[in-house]
Amino acid sequence: MIEPIKPRDEALELLDQRALPEEVRYLHCTRGDEVIEAIQTLAVRGAPAIGIAGAYGLWLEARALQGAIDFSTRLETAKQAIRNARPTAVNLAWAIDRIWRQVEGMGANEMVPRLREMADQLFSEEWARNDRMASYGAALLVPGSRVLTHCNTGSLATVGVGTALGVVREGHRRGLVKEVFADETRPLLQGARLTAWELQQDQIPVTVVTDSMAASLMAAARVDAIIVGADRICANGDTANKIGTYSLAVLARYHHVPFYVAAPMSTIDPALADGSQIPIEQRNPDEVRYVRSAMVAPRDVAVYNPAFDVTPGSLITAIITDRGVARWPYARDIAHLLKTEAEGGRHHE
Amino acid sequence: MIEPIKPRDEALELLDQRALPEEVRYLHCTRGDEVIEAIQTLAVRGAPAIGIAGAYGLWLEARALQGAIDFSTRLETAKQAIRNARPTAVNLAWAIDRIWRQVEGMGANEMVPRLREMADQLFSEEWARNDRMASYGAALLVPGSRVLTHCNTGSLATVGVGTALGVVREGHRRGLVKEVFADETRPLLQGARLTAWELQQDQIPVTVVTDSMAASLMAAARVDAIIVGADRICANGDTANKIGTYSLAVLARYHHVPFYVAAPMSTIDPALADGSQIPIEQRNPDEVRYVRSAMVAPRDVAVYNPAFDVTPGSLITAIITDRGVARWPYARDIAHLLKTEAEGGRHHE
Repeated sequence: MIEPIKPRDEALELLDQRALPEEVRYLHCTRGDEVIEAIQTLAVRGAPAIGIAGAYGLWLEARALQGAIDFSTRLETAKQAIRNARPTAVNLAWAIDRIWRQVEGMGANEMVPRLREMADQLFSEEWARNDRMASYGAALLVPGSRVLTHCNTGSLATVGVGTALGVVREGHRRGLVKEVFADETRPLLQGARLTAWELQQDQIPVTVVTDSMAASLMAAARVDAIIVGADRICANGDTANKIGTYSLAVLARYHHVPFYVAAPMSTIDPALADGSQIPIEQRNPDEVRYVRSAMVAPRDVAVYNPAFDVTPGSLITAIITDRGVARWPYARDIAHLLKTEAEGGRHHE
Repeated sequence: MIEPIKPRDEALELLDQRALPEEVRYLHCTRGDEVIEAIQTLAVRGAPAIGIAGAYGLWLEARALQGAIDFSTRLETAKQAIRNARPTAVNLAWAIDRIWRQVEGMGANEMVPRLREMADQLFSEEWARNDRMASYGAALLVPGSRVLTHCNTGSLATVGVGTALGVVREGHRRGLVKEVFADETRPLLQGARLTAWELQQDQIPVTVVTDSMAASLMAAARVDAIIVGADRICANGDTANKIGTYSLAVLARYHHVPFYVAAPMSTIDPALADGSQIPIEQRNPDEVRYVRSAMVAPRDVAVYNPAFDVTPGSLITAIITDRGVARWPYARDIAHLLKTEAEGGRHHE
């Protein structure tokens, strides 16, 4: 199992994802600002992973400041900096705020071990969430499955087994998954660079394809299931995910291939009735015009570069969450899963 | 209009496509082996373009050898080398053989102008063929069309306006085409590198998208027609073309977008009853693992890299040829077009 985040007794080791797949190297962090730099330079990426790294960063900084006369003031400044390392990563601000509320006002000697404890707890909660999702998802797979996936939804984006890739891993562990096809996932190539590398580490047979090849694999009956992650899921099951996901869902329907979405409950946004309410983020055209430093299109050409697309719930066979599996019509199943949570007394994450 | 092949009075200028879109530079050729090198290094690409370049190469070499005592022997050696510059490009061997049959045995003074004449004829035939196709195709477009295309089927691959891109150009000239979306076309990015550049030169509005984005454009009703080229067309209309074409055809059907194939009659292979008889060429995995010199996947990862896929005729709205438009069921229309040719007394090209 890949460990993108390794908490040590006196430090935090972060897998530097910028160097993958060419090189496996860890950043050794002992201060908060080292963790901030790792987050800001995308050495560590994926919302859950960033939240966890930030929590350990706060612990490291408190540890380093222990004994300082102005401990509280300096730690609060560091806390703010960590919290705001990436403004769009809601998990990070959420994790830091939640932790800070519980330690505010403590003395250093009490606070340092408590911060470590809470970071460890966040880490293991995420791990357990992914394990539950993997288990629910694997139960949907048939023996000998050849699974196609898109983008990176594995250990590198979370901790533990991952979301969609967690289902693949658990399916492989149970002897159900025979082979994985990884869409390279243009423009940022998370599938080719990260998913392929992760699966190789776990010795799960993986074949990389360009995004344009998935259809011909399906036509040749070489894909038994498609499993992807999600960025946001509406109350009716409409799902925003990495650009290219909707294309796969349409192709899956045409070729009668089951199409699964795997995502934690925190991805569900019951305030959104349907996919038309999800704003589509347009990203930098240079992500398409260049691959790393190579120019692959005229430098001034117009580019359409949405970060994600929306797949209607009607094209999704099932949505796999850490609390169970939802099926069409999703409005009913999703409301039920959200209610289960409320009755369990757990706050919405 | 881009001119990838510029015949001069005493030389041949070839646009060096390896440098596109970063740099526009021409190779100045005065000998046969310079043309061979341009063909072998992919400075000039596209089957029709290679055939024409080879024909001019033969003329250049005859011109340079004029006056030599062993003119015939040396030219025949050069002819063989040009003919075999790229063994898979049938157009090249076909063009050289056809020309050679007509000049064999001539003295240098008679042969040199005749070779030039025949190269010019090949050039203008191809140009006229593309013009006819463009005209038949443009008649299918409605005003305000936003057209999506795949790979490069333009002037760079042929001469004149191109095949699918010729239809786009003519549609734009007639005021029918408002906007073009160019699939980048992984792995070799002919759409981003070449099609986008060609359209920019002609000041036709073009937007580059990754192959995975076409579906979301169709879902947003931003595509009115898809036009692609073809590598081989079977008697029943099943069409082999650049990988990703089949994916577009399925997506077009789902979104009710017309899907057109534009290709000269020489692309039709009546010996093949259907697409199952077309062999699928697997190309070098490094085309997917690397983009130019950048490594984008683990260097030893398995890759599925078919050069093309097969689109069943049933998903094609119409096939546009230089002799007219064929429609479903294709067997009948294609047989009719082939017969038209035979009756016209023209040999099959």
